[in-house]
Amino acid sequence: MADIAPVSGVRLAAAAAGIRYQDRDDLVLMELAEGSSVAAVFTRNAFCAAPVLVARKHLQKIAPRYLLINAGNANAGTGEAGLGASFETCRLLAAATGVAMNQILPFSTGVIGEDLPTEPFARAIPGLLTNLDEDNWPAAARAIMTTDTVPKLACRQFEVDGMMVTVTGMCKGSGMIRPDMATMLAYVASDARCEGETLQQILQQAVEPSFNSITVDGDTSTNDACVLLASGATGVDVSDARTEAGRLFRQAVDDVCMDLARAIIADAEGATKLVEILVEEAETRSQARKVAYTVAHSPLVKTALFASDPNWGRILAAVGRAGVEELDISKVRIWLDDLCIVSQGGRDAAYTEARGQEVMEQDAFVIRIALGKGAESASVLTCDLSFDYVKINAEYRT
Amino acid sequence: MADIAPVSGVRLAAAAAGIRYQDRDDLVLMELAEGSSVAAVFTRNAFCAAPVLVARKHLQKIAPRYLLINAGNANAGTGEAGLGASFETCRLLAAATGVAMNQILPFSTGVIGEDLPTEPFARAIPGLLTNLDEDNWPAAARAIMTTDTVPKLACRQFEVDGMMVTVTGMCKGSGMIRPDMATMLAYVASDARCEGETLQQILQQAVEPSFNSITVDGDTSTNDACVLLASGATGVDVSDARTEAGRLFRQAVDDVCMDLARAIIADAEGATKLVEILVEEAETRSQARKVAYTVAHSPLVKTALFASDPNWGRILAAVGRAGVEELDISKVRIWLDDLCIVSQGGRDAAYTEARGQEVMEQDAFVIRIALGKGAESASVLTCDLSFDYVKINAEYRT
Repeated sequence: MADIAPVSGVRLAAAAAGIRYQDRDDLVLMELAEGSSVAAVFTRNAFCAAPVLVARKHLQKIAPRYLLINAGNANAGTGEAGLGASFETCRLLAAATGVAMNQILPFSTGVIGEDLPTEPFARAIPGLLTNLDEDNWPAAARAIMTTDTVPKLACRQFEVDGMMVTVTGMCKGSGMIRPDMATMLAYVASDARCEGETLQQILQQAVEPSFNSITVDGDTSTNDACVLLASGATGVDVSDARTEAGRLFRQAVDDVCMDLARAIIADAEGATKLVEILVEEAETRSQARKVAYTVAHSPLVKTALFASDPNWGRILAAVGRAGVEELDISKVRIWLDDLCIVSQGGRDAAYTEARGQEVMEQDAFVIRIALGKGAESASVLTCDLSFDYVKINAEYRT
Repeated sequence: MADIAPVSGVRLAAAAAGIRYQDRDDLVLMELAEGSSVAAVFTRNAFCAAPVLVARKHLQKIAPRYLLINAGNANAGTGEAGLGASFETCRLLAAATGVAMNQILPFSTGVIGEDLPTEPFARAIPGLLTNLDEDNWPAAARAIMTTDTVPKLACRQFEVDGMMVTVTGMCKGSGMIRPDMATMLAYVASDARCEGETLQQILQQAVEPSFNSITVDGDTSTNDACVLLASGATGVDVSDARTEAGRLFRQAVDDVCMDLARAIIADAEGATKLVEILVEEAETRSQARKVAYTVAHSPLVKTALFASDPNWGRILAAVGRAGVEELDISKVRIWLDDLCIVSQGGRDAAYTEARGQEVMEQDAFVIRIALGKGAESASVLTCDLSFDYVKINAEYRT
């Protein structure tokens, strides 16, 4: 957890509110300096959680001053009562701080379908306000974990005219991961200055190759949210993409999102391997993504990855059922890293099982698939399907 | 295996050819009486296996006389060499029987991507021809098994004008099951008389609610095939759907296909539960199927099924990500058998965890989802995701 620099203008606190977990922090407060810009993307799951609805609504009005994040209870599938609970947590914090209720964004993660109690919030808020500190990123990252086994943090810094600008982010997520907009909870903050609309564009571009290109199990959460904050504390304006500062800022946000997305897959439930599915020579990017996700979601491919078994027939079968129109299988080629396994409709002449096994035994490798149809490509990051994935998800609520 | 009646005009034999397995039968020959009609549907996987290509080609010409089915090697992903091997097995049998090569349909199931040796066929064919017998359905059903733990057979009989007509079928399949046309290998035979084009229609209608509505893991095989034979031995003509015989025949074929499809899910790799996902009130049947398959393929739903955990939030999350346009979640209702779990966007007021658990602990139950959008429905049969699924598929080739 070294090298995670604080972001001036952004203070955090974590507390053990006892919402679900005992003996650990499960509630986080983030405070943004006045004048901060905030951008956010949310799940596109139709059953989105109450806090997602409330945060979306609050973002339409004025710039937020606080983010209130709880782990252990998703407050999803909770109907009107859930909306009421989410508003109530904002009301409690508004009363304690004097800001308007709609300057507070609520976020929840955890079990779906259980009522969110608000008393733990009431009890914890005074302590949270007392403990706000710029150095609390690691504590906050731990407090938002659910089935995660490690906290996930990333940081980039760059200098503009002698002024150091920081981009620091944290996220949580380990299962129910197939973000359709942004993943489970992710927060990236900077002390650069950037107006809101531009910040939103920067975020949307950053989540596409990162959080929107990872999958553990194909299950899109009801609570996915990714937030990008710019406190402006350094005074360095990064709004214009054509300036050096603007370019460096975009790169730093992209890098932090990518680091965090990789951290989620590396910590995916039960995962023992991190595998990139890279699809090339597609007619469209969406076709490339479709093939990549079909392979990434195949339980047979994922169990073969777990076994380090170069059972490439399963990869080929998944490509074959991905719904690509008029796929000429004689033009399809598949590689494990640089080892060609499939060409001309069958096993490559030079392929040997021993070499396939060598690649598959690594902790991380690339399955590269060339469709022979066009020039578009897409990449998806995924993991294997292990005994532990089943164990974790069969026992999650017990 | 009681009550599996032989079909006059159809003789079978099984042999231990040693293609992959030792000490068990792995090769089946089916002989059809001259004048039999044959209908077949095959996988739509772009990487379809060599025997699928050969069988499709042979079906275009004249009525087949023999089906030659091997287990242990799928002869898929084997390119030109695989096609050559498949033709060679037909040539060997043609030479031994005197029929034309294109009167033989080859089928293979097993590991993908390994060359199919033809010597075992050459050695086994004389014995197969000697042992042909109408009573060999059980032996044949055992010989085509791969990861199946039980042979799968079904039978229906009906009487027309004092003449008993039989419809008997067998199939294999346990993993890589998400048939897109028909499942892994299935063979249904009757001694009724039916001309080929009508027989093809009857088969296509029968596979839709049976083999085309089951899923274990979403992985469509490269070798799926379902064949319907009518030997005509009884002389009972069933071609006309408006006659009593025609109606009873269609019902019998539907029933046998349904029995076999259920048998596949009941024997799905590692499965401990048989679950029907019934989606109602959809705008179109295809929308209903999309939602049903999204739920049926969700690893989180499947592990909850395994744990008998009524974690209905996962069902709701899967419905929410199924891509239904303008889904009004307040109109969605979800039941476990007759127990309402979700209404008005959240947990039903009368629902209790204890009652949910009761339903989930059964070996078989229905998850019913009403979308509140229209009048179309669809049903998909699936199973849970267990430790054993991972174990079986991580160790398949070792």
